[in-house]
Amino acid sequence: MHYFLKNVPERTQKPRDKGFTMAMDKGLSVRQAEDFLSASQDYVDIVKLGWATSYVTPNLEEKLEVYRNANIPYYFGGTLFEAFIVRNQFDDYRKLLDKYKVPFAEVSDGSIEMDHDEKCGYIQKLKEQVTVLSEVGSKDEEKIIPPYQWIELMQKELDAGAWKVIGEARESGNVGLFRSTGEVRSGLVQEILTKIPYEKIIWEAPQKTQQVYFIKLMGANVNLGNIAPADLIPLETIRLGLRGDTFSHFLDMNK
Amino acid sequence: MHYFLKNVPERTQKPRDKGFTMAMDKGLSVRQAEDFLSASQDYVDIVKLGWATSYVTPNLEEKLEVYRNANIPYYFGGTLFEAFIVRNQFDDYRKLLDKYKVPFAEVSDGSIEMDHDEKCGYIQKLKEQVTVLSEVGSKDEEKIIPPYQWIELMQKELDAGAWKVIGEARESGNVGLFRSTGEVRSGLVQEILTKIPYEKIIWEAPQKTQQVYFIKLMGANVNLGNIAPADLIPLETIRLGLRGDTFSHFLDMNK
Amino acid sequence: MHYFLKNVPERTQKPRDKGFTMAMDKGLSVRQAEDFLSASQDYVDIVKLGWATSYVTPNLEEKLEVYRNANIPYYFGGTLFEAFIVRNQFDDYRKLLDKYKVPFAEVSDGSIEMDHDEKCGYIQKLKEQVTVLSEVGSKDEEKIIPPYQWIELMQKELDAGAWKVIGEARESGNVGLFRSTGEVRSGLVQEILTKIPYEKIIWEAPQKTQQVYFIKLMGANVNLGNIAPADLIPLETIRLGLRGDTFSHFLDMNK
Repeated sequence: MHYFLKNVPERTQKPRDKGFTMAMDKGLSVRQAEDFLSASQDYVDIVKLGWATSYVTPNLEEKLEVYRNANIPYYFGGTLFEAFIVRNQFDDYRKLLDKYKVPFAEVSDGSIEMDHDEKCGYIQKLKEQVTVLSEVGSKDEEKIIPPYQWIELMQKELDAGAWKVIGEARESGNVGLFRSTGEVRSGLVQEILTKIPYEKIIWEAPQKTQQVYFIKLMGANVNLGNIAPADLIPLETIRLGLRGDTFSHFLDMNK
Repeated sequence: MHYFLKNVPERTQKPRDKGFTMAMDKGLSVRQAEDFLSASQDYVDIVKLGWATSYVTPNLEEKLEVYRNANIPYYFGGTLFEAFIVRNQFDDYRKLLDKYKVPFAEVSDGSIEMDHDEKCGYIQKLKEQVTVLSEVGSKDEEKIIPPYQWIELMQKELDAGAWKVIGEARESGNVGLFRSTGEVRSGLVQEILTKIPYEKIIWEAPQKTQQVYFIKLMGANVNLGNIAPADLIPLETIRLGLRGDTFSHFLDMNK
Repeated sequence: MHYFLKNVPERTQKPRDKGFTMAMDKGLSVRQAEDFLSASQDYVDIVKLGWATSYVTPNLEEKLEVYRNANIPYYFGGTLFEAFIVRNQFDDYRKLLDKYKVPFAEVSDGSIEMDHDEKCGYIQKLKEQVTVLSEVGSKDEEKIIPPYQWIELMQKELDAGAWKVIGEARESGNVGLFRSTGEVRSGLVQEILTKIPYEKIIWEAPQKTQQVYFIKLMGANVNLGNIAPADLIPLETIRLGLRGDTFSHFLDMNK
C-alpha cells in the first residue's frame, strides 16, 4: 500500500549498504523460514543462524536453499566460529563455509579470549573466501570495554578487511552496547559515531526500545541486527514513523 | 472435548456482543494467519492489523481474504487512522477502507493531539461507512488521564456512534489502563465501571496478569483486546477457570 | 553437522532416561506442531499439552496423531487432572486417557489442596493404566514448601509408582523451584539432590537462565521441562556448550 501516505521517510532499496536489517534465525523449520520470508522478504537483508544453532539444525541444507532461493544471504553466528577456533579447527571451519555455500562469515571473540592481532588475522584470511562481518563486544556482562577501545577495535577490524562491524548485544539485548537492563549505553554509542561512519556499523538491537533509540538517533536507514523474524514488519513501521514510538519524531522532522 | 467437565463458566457464542476477543496480527504471513485460525477460530471475534503494519504488509489482500473466508472481521489499527489524519488525508483513508473491504475502523488519538469534538466528528462520519471502534488513552506513558475524564471521553464517543470503546494499552500493556510496569490501574478501571456498562468496553490486555485481572473482576465474558494469536487458547482456559490463575476463582463462585 | 566439532559433551539418545526434554504445547495448530517437530524432533522426548489447553483445542485428535506419528509421547497438563478431581470426575479422566490414547498422566496438586496420601493413591491407580509423572510444588507463589518437605513428597511419590517427579515452575518460571523474579532457589535444588537421584527429576525450566543453571550444575544430560517449542534448538546448544552461556563451562571441564 506504499502509494498513499505523504511524507514517509525514504528507505534504501536492496541491495542495501545502509538501512540494512539482519534477522536472527535461532532454529526455524524450513516452513517457518518460508513463512517469515513471505511476509518480510523486502525488509530483511541478511539472515544469521544465531550462534551455533546451525550445528544442531536438521535439514540445514534444505533451509539454506530457502534463503538462497529468496536471494537472502545467510551466515553462521560468531559463536560457531569461536567454537572452531578454540578447538584449533580453523581449517575445518573454512571447509564448512564452502560446503554450505555460506557467503558471509562472522569473526568474533565474545566467548573466548583472543589476541586482537590474531582476530584481525582471521579477518584477513577469511576475506579471501567470503565477505567478513566482525563483531566487537563481549557476551560477558561484567566485561566492560571503554569507548576509546571500542573505536580502536572497530577501526582495526575494518582496516583488516571487515565489510562492516557489529556491535554486540546477544539475542537478549543485555550486554555490550546495552546495560543488563537492556538500556542503551548512549554515551558509548555517541562516542563511537564521532569516529566510525554509522553505515559501517550493524547495531544489534533485539528489543523495541533499542531499535527506536537507534532510529531516532541515526534515521530510518540505520543498520540493525539480531531482529527476530516476527519483528521485521514492526521494525519497518518504526523506521517509517508509522508506530507510536517514532510517529511524532519523523513528523517533527518534516516541519 | 467440551462435553465432560462440570461447572465450567458458560461462554457467549459468536457473533458475540460480550465475551469478545480481539486478536492482534502484527505482521503474520498468509500461512501463519491460517495456522492461528485453525487452532483458535472459535476464540477470536475480530482481528486488528496492529497500528500501521498493514502499510508494509505484502500480499495484504490475500491475507485479508483468509480472514474473510473464516468470517472473522478485521480492521486496521488506530495509528494508521492517525497517520492519515495528521497528513490531511482523511478522504484517502475512507477510500482505503472501501478498497480493502474493511468492515470496522478505529478512531483514536494515541499519538496525536486532537480536539475531542473533532474526534467525535470522525466517529460520526465513519459510522456511515463502517462499524466504529474508538479508543481512549494515550500511548505516551507520561500522559495520565484522570478517571472522570476517561468516563467523559468514553461516554461522548459512544454517544457519537462508536459501537464500543477501547481502553488503550499498546501491544506491550504498559500505558493507558496500566502503569509502566504493566500493573493495572485498578482504581481507574473500577471508577469507569460505575458509569460505563462493561460490555461497551474492550479492555486491551496483552499480558496474562492483566487478562486474569479483568476476568476475575467482570467474569468469563469480559471483552479483551490486543491478544497475541498464540495466547488465544491460553486466554480461553483462563476465561473457563481451567488455568491455575482463575482455577479457584470460578470454583469458589460455584459454592 | 555433528561430525566436525571435537570435545562436545556426549548426549544420551532416544529413548532417553536422562538428558530428557519435555516441551510444552500451549495451543499449537496441527501445522505448527508439524513445524516444530521438523526442526526439533531429535531434541524433544515428550510433549505436554500445557495445563487444560487440551480442553479447548479443536482438532485435538488430529494433532495428537502428529505426535504419535513422530513417536513423541504426549500427555495432558496436571491442571486438567486437578480439574477432574475437584469435580469428582476421576473416572471420566481415566476414560479420557483411553479415548485419546494418552500414554502418560501427570498427577499434581498445584491449584488444589489434596491430602498427600490421596495424591499417592491416584499415582498408584493411574500407574496401572499409564506411565505416571507426578509434580511437586504449588502454582501459588506465596506457598513456600521447605526443602525437607520437597524431598519427602518426591520420595513418597516415587515410591507410589511415579516414573519421575517434576519440579513445578509454571509456563513462566516464577514459582515452585524459582523465586517470583525467576531466580533459582538454589539451596532448595541442592538439598533435593542430596537425597533424590537427579535423573528421577524433571526440572521445569522455561527461562534460559534457569536452563543454564541446571546444565551447569548437573551436566548436559539433566532432564528439563516446560521448554517452549521455539527454544528446543537453543536448549540443545546450551547442553552442548555451543552457546555463550555454557561455552567456557564445558571447555574448562575438558581441561
